[in-house]
Amino acid sequence: LTTRLPAVGTTVFTRMSMLAAQAGAVNLGQGFPDFGCERSLLAAVNDAMQADFNQYPMMSGAPVLRQAIVAKIAALYGHQYHVDSEITVTAGATQALTTAIFCCVHPGDEVIVIEPVYDSYVPAITLAGGMPVSVEMEVGPAGYTVPWAKVAAAVNGKTRLIIINTPHNPTSTVLRAADMQALADIVRGTDVLILSDEVYEHMVYDGHQHESVSRHAELAARAFVVSSFGKTYHVTGWKIGYVAAPAALMAEFRKVHQYNVFSVNTPMQHGIASYMADPKPYLELPAFYQRKRDLFRDGLNNTRFELLPADGTYFQCVRYDKISTQTEAEFAEWLTTEIKVAAIPVSAFYQQGKESGIVRFCFAKKDETLALALERLGKV
Amino acid sequence: LTTRLPAVGTTVFTRMSMLAAQAGAVNLGQGFPDFGCERSLLAAVNDAMQADFNQYPMMSGAPVLRQAIVAKIAALYGHQYHVDSEITVTAGATQALTTAIFCCVHPGDEVIVIEPVYDSYVPAITLAGGMPVSVEMEVGPAGYTVPWAKVAAAVNGKTRLIIINTPHNPTSTVLRAADMQALADIVRGTDVLILSDEVYEHMVYDGHQHESVSRHAELAARAFVVSSFGKTYHVTGWKIGYVAAPAALMAEFRKVHQYNVFSVNTPMQHGIASYMADPKPYLELPAFYQRKRDLFRDGLNNTRFELLPADGTYFQCVRYDKISTQTEAEFAEWLTTEIKVAAIPVSAFYQQGKESGIVRFCFAKKDETLALALERLGKV
Ligand SMILES: CSCCC(=O)C(=O)O
Ligand SMILES: CSCCC(=O)C(=O)O
Repeated sequence: LTTRLPAVGTTVFTRMSMLAAQAGAVNLGQGFPDFGCERSLLAAVNDAMQADFNQYPMMSGAPVLRQAIVAKIAALYGHQYHVDSEITVTAGATQALTTAIFCCVHPGDEVIVIEPVYDSYVPAITLAGGMPVSVEMEVGPAGYTVPWAKVAAAVNGKTRLIIINTPHNPTSTVLRAADMQALADIVRGTDVLILSDEVYEHMVYDGHQHESVSRHAELAARAFVVSSFGKTYHVTGWKIGYVAAPAALMAEFRKVHQYNVFSVNTPMQHGIASYMADPKPYLELPAFYQRKRDLFRDGLNNTRFELLPADGTYFQCVRYDKISTQTEAEFAEWLTTEIKVAAIPVSAFYQQGKESGIVRFCFAKKDETLALALERLGKV
Repeated sequence: LTTRLPAVGTTVFTRMSMLAAQAGAVNLGQGFPDFGCERSLLAAVNDAMQADFNQYPMMSGAPVLRQAIVAKIAALYGHQYHVDSEITVTAGATQALTTAIFCCVHPGDEVIVIEPVYDSYVPAITLAGGMPVSVEMEVGPAGYTVPWAKVAAAVNGKTRLIIINTPHNPTSTVLRAADMQALADIVRGTDVLILSDEVYEHMVYDGHQHESVSRHAELAARAFVVSSFGKTYHVTGWKIGYVAAPAALMAEFRKVHQYNVFSVNTPMQHGIASYMADPKPYLELPAFYQRKRDLFRDGLNNTRFELLPADGTYFQCVRYDKISTQTEAEFAEWLTTEIKVAAIPVSAFYQQGKESGIVRFCFAKKDETLALALERLGKV
């Protein structure tokens, strides 16, 4: 038996988390917090269970949650999605991304991805029979940037979809209004669709603004915009996400969605909907994580690692060229087993495993955890 | 934009549930209970949330839940699956089925399905680029039977997979040991795999035994066996299912699973695992639902509907030839809007919409609900 993904192994996140557990390392690899969420969120889910919201929700999602999502997007990004026809709740962002790819990529279609690229996009494109076409971000002193001229050059008659991700995992890059303008210029007058992964939408620092695709009407008209609650509410294990898209695209999305998962956990949907009535948790998130980022960066300044900019997400990329000539995978393993701090090699986000001497740390951790990790990293 | 499922509409379950709500009908259409689950199950999930089991679980599922599943299968069906390599927890049975299809069906492969067929299988096969090949069950006075000689005749060099479903939705047929023997004879010496949908495994009546594929070593060696907790524990909205398969098949399943949903709701997994320590809820389920089935059948005996056998599941199929010459869809709509009892047309389970003058009712309802439905159906 061979699947349609013969070359695929276990994800780098699973492998590094297992290695971290074996080695007794501080796990700054896979992106998840080591602290709890707010108790009122748990109470809201429990209330929903007790109120017997335990049977099939609507295939598109619980109306209360779709309403809360629509209200949030309108308040933050000024785009008014239609509650019934333009929002679908998904079993996490990964399922939303894969389903969106399945609903529009036909065998032979080309899909442009920006490398480094989150590890689920390319296998999903491949499974759909599509052809991934990579455009590499450029790394300079100001961090990673998307070379839009190269994206423009990659577009041809076979291009069906461009996938973007902002704030960007793993590079922490936050796309700017000029980036969105460049993207709009590229797709204008074509049939190319946009799939925008915005799961770190509430983690943007230093006063920058999250340029949601839904903020840009011209792009939103041809886009699937994906987000999730796991990162925002410190519950990465809940696996509740959503996709927003114009009704015509959403109708097609749901054709696939209903036969992939049919619908999504009911009490979690109701609990999150009621918790969302208060915008404070996500409005306060940038300050919460910016403080952790600064703590972590300050500590790393006393080490031999070289910091890359981190404008968004809860990841910090560092160069280790001054420390080792190992490949990124080797170095990340060495860090995990010998220094007892797990990291993710950025090469895992390149289809050809490109080496740039950079690894990624996750700083969504208790201050004590970050302090312990920094103490160990200081010894490198 | 056209998806790869151009012919697909909204599922019959969604449509009939919406119509039932509009019409104020008793909803015996979509299969879900109208009563609550046990409070101790809710408490177990709440305990897991409070204990901070809210971050990513392992991609394959929480070890405690995989252990509980392995123990249950061993106790009931005598097959010892390996906890680490042979069980994966999924976002409901539908996701398990679709992912299993994706992991083994290559473009051009044939997949044999038995009609009437649960509505997600064929779209999943189509999405994977496979060719569904239907074999129709035969209906006699003893109910529906699978004509295994026709299944055997349908197998050829392109056949990759045979999908079975026992207890069977919508016909309530429970496959017997002789059926499993016939299936084993067909696949012996071929490369054909089996996908077995067993979500109604604990709803088998009149002393019959559920012939899980995992009970039959020769079949289990080449099978994905799918089940879920939604039907068993009266929580259809939780969307937690699982697949059991030999390690070699499971390795391929996980390659697709990890890029479809990555992993499944953590606190639900932990809560269910702890609730499973007591086998009583599923051991008592046959008696619980057999009583409801008998109540419902007794009531229908006083109507002009003709009962088909119902050996398993929580569905009851009835003939309405003596009442109407309408198509099944028309009749089900008429029942819903005029008689105020929603049903599902069995034609929705045939690719070509075959008409047999039969509709399906769900009897997973409070006794009062069944009484009210029977009163209304008596007027037909
Ligand atoms: C789905 S596990 C990976 C979590 C994550 O987004 C990351 O670490 O990049
Ligand atoms: C996934 S909604 C349909 C529920 C069900 O299995 C049925 O009614 O047949």
